Amino acid sequence: MSSQKPTLFTCLSPALLHLYDLKGAVVVIIDVFRATSTIAYALNNGAKCVIPVDSVPKAVALSKNVNGIAAGERDGKIAEGLEHGNSPLEYHPEFIKDRTLVLTTTNGTRLLQMALDNQAETIITGSFPNLGAVCDFLIKENKNVVLGCAGWKDRYNLEDTLFAGAVINRIKEYFTIHCDSSLTAENMYLQQQDDLIGFAPKLTHYHRLVERFGLIEDIRFCLTENAANVLPLYKEGLLIRG
Amino acid sequence: MSSQKPTLFTCLSPALLHLYDLKGAVVVIIDVFRATSTIAYALNNGAKCVIPVDSVPKAVALSKNVNGIAAGERDGKIAEGLEHGNSPLEYHPEFIKDRTLVLTTTNGTRLLQMALDNQAETIITGSFPNLGAVCDFLIKENKNVVLGCAGWKDRYNLEDTLFAGAVINRIKEYFTIHCDSSLTAENMYLQQQDDLIGFAPKLTHYHRLVERFGLIEDIRFCLTENAANVLPLYKEGLLIRG
Repeated sequence: MSSQKPTLFTCLSPALLHLYDLKGAVVVIIDVFRATSTIAYALNNGAKCVIPVDSVPKAVALSKNVNGIAAGERDGKIAEGLEHGNSPLEYHPEFIKDRTLVLTTTNGTRLLQMALDNQAETIITGSFPNLGAVCDFLIKENKNVVLGCAGWKDRYNLEDTLFAGAVINRIKEYFTIHCDSSLTAENMYLQQQDDLIGFAPKLTHYHRLVERFGLIEDIRFCLTENAANVLPLYKEGLLIRG
Repeated sequence: MSSQKPTLFTCLSPALLHLYDLKGAVVVIIDVFRATSTIAYALNNGAKCVIPVDSVPKAVALSKNVNGIAAGERDGKIAEGLEHGNSPLEYHPEFIKDRTLVLTTTNGTRLLQMALDNQAETIITGSFPNLGAVCDFLIKENKNVVLGCAGWKDRYNLEDTLFAGAVINRIKEYFTIHCDSSLTAENMYLQQQDDLIGFAPKLTHYHRLVERFGLIEDIRFCLTENAANVLPLYKEGLLIRG
């Protein structure tokens, strides 16, 4: 019976997260440009784990403790005091294999902390490079789902919503979905799926990254489905391969 | 020069209103189902004015003072203690001409109060029945614009976003628009504009209204462009014909 299917909601901004009941749910943290794409690439390339933290000093201190790499961005640039940023392509296998990445970002790591504070049962991260792994996991778990878009400083970002739409488009038969955010997400994805990279220049975040920092290769990677198809699963402070 | 054009932003939920600078701006309050459709219909049918208030007791008290009609809804139904609800079609000319409507609703009147609190310079209300009047006014004013979607108890509602998209589609050449919410709104409108009424059953709010209260005629009216093409303008506590 359809009423026995778990529910799926899409949360368009961290500022709306309080409207959703996360207890017992799987929360997917979505920060397409670029935190959750970076996390997928690093784990897929053999990183031991990724530790998300909410400040630069914490990243620096923790990376020394665990002999890891401190990395992160503020406002799209490598954060002051760090040597590595939030560009997924930095984390190629030769660099990241068997190492720990301690990562702090403007939006994605903050939303993850909010999901923890709101008692999410399970937290994973998603982006186009690990779309397939996210969908497989959500179907297998068969629990309520909240697709959490990280946005930009609480503002709505369409690229995160497009990823939510890609997930919904693949798994909707397994869930009860009565949510205009999900309806919008899937329709926008269906409208743009054939050329996400061609659509990208219309996104505000594209301009923030490409015009200011020249990160067009990052954008291409972040919009490529299943290019790093691993499942980042949050366990006791760490994101590990699930 | 395009940089001299005023800006236009779309705010997808009252819970995001604090992210936008309303000072000096025109704020369009959008509550398609049904407050801002009701306001347009009442004013277009000769109501002296509409007074938006935030509680049922205020509506009752004020309506006695001004010899007006106290009306409103809570959770989609006529609010307890009131005789008239938030169904636009109730306010036909024979009933409303030269009378004052004192209206309290779940979302629209609350957002209007929030816009006041955030120092909006000019406040108008919009819905498909007065789409043309809203667009003409925004072009004429030539000020920054925030399209404020009322949503449902802070949740995102697609019908409000569709109206924002309809406005953007008509006036975008006059404004600088760098906003993923506006991009989404216009794309969703372009995708659905040929059959808004046919699309309506996919909206969560449709089910709230039609399945529970049988208000299909309300829905049709609320999605009909320029069916009550008046400009409700907020002046010193009153919505009057602008």
